[in-house]
Amino acid sequence: MSIRFSVIGFEHGHVAKIINLLQDANAEFVSFYVLNDTQIAEVNHNYPQAKQAHSIDEILEDESIQLVVGGNIPIDRAPLGIRVMCQGKDYVTAKPGICTLEQLAEVRKIQAETGQIYSICFSERFTQKATIKAGELVKAGAIGHVVKTTGLGPHRLFKEGESRPEWFFDTQLAGGILVDLASHQMDQFLYFTGSTEAEVIGATVGNVKHPQFPQFYDVGDVMVRSPHASGYVRIDWLTPKGLPSWGDVRLFLTGTDGYIEIRKNLDIAGREGESHLFLVDDDGVKYIDCSDAEITYGKQLIDDILNRTETAMPQAHVFLASELAIKAEAMATDLTKLDG
Amino acid sequence: MSIRFSVIGFEHGHVAKIINLLQDANAEFVSFYVLNDTQIAEVNHNYPQAKQAHSIDEILEDESIQLVVGGNIPIDRAPLGIRVMCQGKDYVTAKPGICTLEQLAEVRKIQAETGQIYSICFSERFTQKATIKAGELVKAGAIGHVVKTTGLGPHRLFKEGESRPEWFFDTQLAGGILVDLASHQMDQFLYFTGSTEAEVIGATVGNVKHPQFPQFYDVGDVMVRSPHASGYVRIDWLTPKGLPSWGDVRLFLTGTDGYIEIRKNLDIAGREGESHLFLVDDDGVKYIDCSDAEITYGKQLIDDILNRTETAMPQAHVFLASELAIKAEAMATDLTKLDG
Repeated sequence: MSIRFSVIGFEHGHVAKIINLLQDANAEFVSFYVLNDTQIAEVNHNYPQAKQAHSIDEILEDESIQLVVGGNIPIDRAPLGIRVMCQGKDYVTAKPGICTLEQLAEVRKIQAETGQIYSICFSERFTQKATIKAGELVKAGAIGHVVKTTGLGPHRLFKEGESRPEWFFDTQLAGGILVDLASHQMDQFLYFTGSTEAEVIGATVGNVKHPQFPQFYDVGDVMVRSPHASGYVRIDWLTPKGLPSWGDVRLFLTGTDGYIEIRKNLDIAGREGESHLFLVDDDGVKYIDCSDAEITYGKQLIDDILNRTETAMPQAHVFLASELAIKAEAMATDLTKLDG
Repeated sequence: MSIRFSVIGFEHGHVAKIINLLQDANAEFVSFYVLNDTQIAEVNHNYPQAKQAHSIDEILEDESIQLVVGGNIPIDRAPLGIRVMCQGKDYVTAKPGICTLEQLAEVRKIQAETGQIYSICFSERFTQKATIKAGELVKAGAIGHVVKTTGLGPHRLFKEGESRPEWFFDTQLAGGILVDLASHQMDQFLYFTGSTEAEVIGATVGNVKHPQFPQFYDVGDVMVRSPHASGYVRIDWLTPKGLPSWGDVRLFLTGTDGYIEIRKNLDIAGREGESHLFLVDDDGVKYIDCSDAEITYGKQLIDDILNRTETAMPQAHVFLASELAIKAEAMATDLTKLDG
């Protein structure tokens, strides 16, 4: 038994990632509502079974649809999710899934009232095999209690010959670098330290290399703490052309009985491939093969939709991860303006 | 032409490191004042040419001595340095070279009045070949402007069968984990980002594994910023027994045109040896051999003593690095107490 889902909006490649996760877990992609002709052609080409709807309401009123995938630009994702939940359907979107504290308050309220699911696919954990493996290791007590997380998330701004849409360079529409990129690491801080409450200690942002985009930040960092752990996140849009990956993303987990380093996308000047995990404990240093780690997010989300559970990710966790990222962005010192 | 120096106190292995740096640069180790019999035997054995003095004053009044190496326990290093400077001699000590804001104010005042040198040997930069090499690369513009530094400084608490003196576990005497270990990274943040002013954004400390030492912290972290850059430092005394080094110390430098990672002591499950430097820029990923990097601190300090210059490290830099570490410790949230 599985579920039927629709897609509204196709503004970022992450939507395709979510569709594929759901299809891999046997969910049925039924229909989509997308305005842009190029995007329509792309959906038709890649998902020929999905039917083009003529309005959002056509999807929302289809009682056979249990889940809507929100693929709008970031600022529109929460308002869409609210409509979806009010219509008695569950919702999943890419990060950033919520852009402002006002959106967050409204989403929290409607989610509590309707009992629908509002999920954000934090792909740097859910679809990253070394990170999934780290979750299994930590759960099994391999490094004791995790007391620190350090997440480094550099990203490439432009692939050779490619561009990005205008909205991407407008913090008001895209949510800002911390709301966007750092939300991954907020998720991972809470998850790996087992924290259900947390606050932002401090944050900075800046535009150090892209003056042509005055409403855009290309660097940021933030420090957070829970009652028993702290974490740091550093992100940027500065990945150099010479790196054979979109970003040298790292995660360090400091435990009371050992530590883990994850090199998510590549091992610079080292091993081939992705998903590198290093475990150091009292017994020695181990390089761990993560190829057998199972990506379970799609299957778990479908189970949650069918059984009204929260096995993929607790609902409160989704909101707290978003809250930390939004608050960090709001309180961040702009280091580049200070200099001018 | 070189200089003559004396040593007062031999409470930590770092003193020997400084003595060796100075001797390697042709300075003459003339005399020492040490109380502990075991330590006296050790100095006599390793430095047979050095004469045992019968009092601190005997050293301070010896007009042939230009430099005193302070090897006391941390809390006594600044008071000794003040006496030394007042006697018209220069001073060098291991980190932490200054433990409180009161000590810092007094050291700053006396240094300004006397014009003597008060140096702190930040060994994780001055004696670490990959870090020296990184300084050369950054100076040459290899990664553009450095806008972030991320320093991870785990340390081993006990070598097999070894112990540490009682003062080490008393924050009042040893200065606290941030004053002690994080001072290295404060130095490196200022140095690599070219910052001459900076402030602490936030900090935490905790004792997560050593309840037998109630006056001791085994984890800490701190976020700092200057007007144009920010940095994060995470340190601990949790190095697992299985790591073939005292600590997997890392430094990441994020530049506008590339980045550098340094694996200072070892490359876990990777290359042999120490001092690993990775440079990523628009041209590609490079592993850089650092064996030709020259340790110049000893020679430069001697030059500074002879020529009244500040080539080893600007005096204001020494004080600002210390100030950041002391302020971080003072404002740090104790995460482990919060839980109790």
